[in-house]
Amino acid sequence: MSMTRNFGFGTQIRKSPYFDATVRWGATGFSVYNHMYIPRDFGDPEQNFWNLVTTAILCDVAVERQVEITGPDAARFTQMLTPRDLSTMSVGQCKYVLITNAEGGILNDPIVLRLAEDHFWLSLADSDILLWAQGLAVHSGLDVTIREPDVSPLQLQGPQSRYIMQSLFGEDILDLRYFWLREVELDGIPLVVSRTGWSSELGYEIYLRDGSRGDELWERIMAAGAPYGLQPGHTSTIRRIEAGMLSYHADMDAQTNPYELGLGRLVNLDTEAEFIGKAALTRIRDEGISRKQVGLLIGGGPLNGPNTVFWPVAKDGTPIGKVTSAVYSPRLGQNIALALVAAEHAVLGETVEVRVDDVPTRAEIVDRPFFDPKKALATDSVRVA
Amino acid sequence: MSMTRNFGFGTQIRKSPYFDATVRWGATGFSVYNHMYIPRDFGDPEQNFWNLVTTAILCDVAVERQVEITGPDAARFTQMLTPRDLSTMSVGQCKYVLITNAEGGILNDPIVLRLAEDHFWLSLADSDILLWAQGLAVHSGLDVTIREPDVSPLQLQGPQSRYIMQSLFGEDILDLRYFWLREVELDGIPLVVSRTGWSSELGYEIYLRDGSRGDELWERIMAAGAPYGLQPGHTSTIRRIEAGMLSYHADMDAQTNPYELGLGRLVNLDTEAEFIGKAALTRIRDEGISRKQVGLLIGGGPLNGPNTVFWPVAKDGTPIGKVTSAVYSPRLGQNIALALVAAEHAVLGETVEVRVDDVPTRAEIVDRPFFDPKKALATDSVRVA
Repeated sequence: MSMTRNFGFGTQIRKSPYFDATVRWGATGFSVYNHMYIPRDFGDPEQNFWNLVTTAILCDVAVERQVEITGPDAARFTQMLTPRDLSTMSVGQCKYVLITNAEGGILNDPIVLRLAEDHFWLSLADSDILLWAQGLAVHSGLDVTIREPDVSPLQLQGPQSRYIMQSLFGEDILDLRYFWLREVELDGIPLVVSRTGWSSELGYEIYLRDGSRGDELWERIMAAGAPYGLQPGHTSTIRRIEAGMLSYHADMDAQTNPYELGLGRLVNLDTEAEFIGKAALTRIRDEGISRKQVGLLIGGGPLNGPNTVFWPVAKDGTPIGKVTSAVYSPRLGQNIALALVAAEHAVLGETVEVRVDDVPTRAEIVDRPFFDPKKALATDSVRVA
Repeated sequence: MSMTRNFGFGTQIRKSPYFDATVRWGATGFSVYNHMYIPRDFGDPEQNFWNLVTTAILCDVAVERQVEITGPDAARFTQMLTPRDLSTMSVGQCKYVLITNAEGGILNDPIVLRLAEDHFWLSLADSDILLWAQGLAVHSGLDVTIREPDVSPLQLQGPQSRYIMQSLFGEDILDLRYFWLREVELDGIPLVVSRTGWSSELGYEIYLRDGSRGDELWERIMAAGAPYGLQPGHTSTIRRIEAGMLSYHADMDAQTNPYELGLGRLVNLDTEAEFIGKAALTRIRDEGISRKQVGLLIGGGPLNGPNTVFWPVAKDGTPIGKVTSAVYSPRLGQNIALALVAAEHAVLGETVEVRVDDVPTRAEIVDRPFFDPKKALATDSVRVA
């Protein structure tokens, strides 16, 4: 997804606090996410992938807007939003969750950050969960305050990110465990850092808590990263599909339930916790699902960029589903894809037919992730947990 | 707002049922609105403006997603969403409304369409009111169903639109009054048509109720319009600012209340109706406002396109507000703008200073609309009512 440099930016879509910095550092294309511009092109997406997996990249993900939930009933309200059991979540912890509606459909897949007993952030994918949460709160009888704070994340991702963090924040930051957060300052700039990210590489998210200092923060990190080969970049479609990570609206939407995605582990039905969608998800679990997400290896030559439409999937000429995300992985030398198909055809090793821009192409159903660095390289790289 | 033709379209952002047609008819730039691509460039925006005001244009506004509210409590629930009194709204009528949160801030400014006693659509500006309404419904105790139906509007706008509608739907359609709707068919394509639009010109919206027939509908209308000079086009920033029409996120957001925009006529506090924000809006009405929207004529040479950032406004060197939307009107030969300024400075005829891309520029506070065709031309053109 990219548009060329010749854009006209209106005021109807917001600009990130890093906008000027990313343009200065060579952003040539932007998309829109949560009503805000996000840089999606710094030249060659394959080079961006290699930068990510071999050194490190700094990505403007201020579009991950935060929903802040505070007040005496904050924990109870936050639990109401998600089927994942948060009862054992500690202050300082992060969790990947699904937000579901009353039918069990997925409205978003944010990271929850617990900053204090009664202080949560939801770090959002692309939908206005601020409105969902505020709407829920009106008649909930719970004492909560829900707002969008002045918080704008960066992602520092890749194997060198550890050393760059150490250079910025000192030795202590290396103690930060996977999916934990810490409140820190850098030259007086108020930040939260977490060991999370949308890359499946070792990485960090750096949440700026003062939008007026975005330019300064960006330059400070780029300077600290220069000795380690840090490059400006953007979230990598190649790497995230390799890892089987999901993109909201593409791989799932309000008509998709967690079980279809194989994410039953994020649904805790056997707890006391009350959450929106519990009855529907219990029914779906008991009755079973008719669609299932699978990995695909698609034949033919290397794809010329990600799919731009949902490609139909067929078995013996009968439609059975659609490819939701596809890309060529230069590391694997394979066209890899995520697809939603009829459950009875979600069988590893089965052959199906994908219409790749109207060209019928053979594909094989395979397991995800397509690439697991723990197995391949025994690095400290990470997966969404 | 435009991006050039060299885009890559992913599946994370939706495509309208008219997407292929607009590309075929020369769309060279798209923006994103309600998670969907919208064509915003068919070449020269000034030519698009003249096409709109002298003949007619067809615009893909499928991004105006509909929130459908049905069920026994549909009317009560829809009233709960807006401070405008809907108690006298007839079946077949449309109303421009504001949706407010508990603090009286504006979440959206849709058109409400009443299709039946217990059947409403909200034709949205750019925010996920589907989530707001579904969230509100969860604990509301009201018996409603809220969903996004398969409905994708087109706008047919401009003085010739009347004759094109007559050619498509016959003589009867001329009886359709301003801000009323009718359910019709065209070659078996199910539609709703309304005499509304975001142009302040005579015009219609045509709501396609079967997304699979978008291409067919587009071609059918373009063919019918050919003898009348119909052109493919996009909503005109020039025309809408001339009319003082508002763009959500640019001219208002959740931190803006109706009184600041001079839209007190859309807030009915002295009724029995219960709606979200009533207490807050009563307080704001009684206490008064500190900011106010004004029109501005900005000096200097013709602006080179709309403002891309909010321009600061100052009075005698002191910051008093910001320009939210600005453009050069070739018809008026003036730079016209909407601005939010400190209420004490919202005085017609006052001179203020606008930083136009960092160049201090003299501007004069004037009344809106900047152009009123009723006064200027005595045509049948219309304004948001």
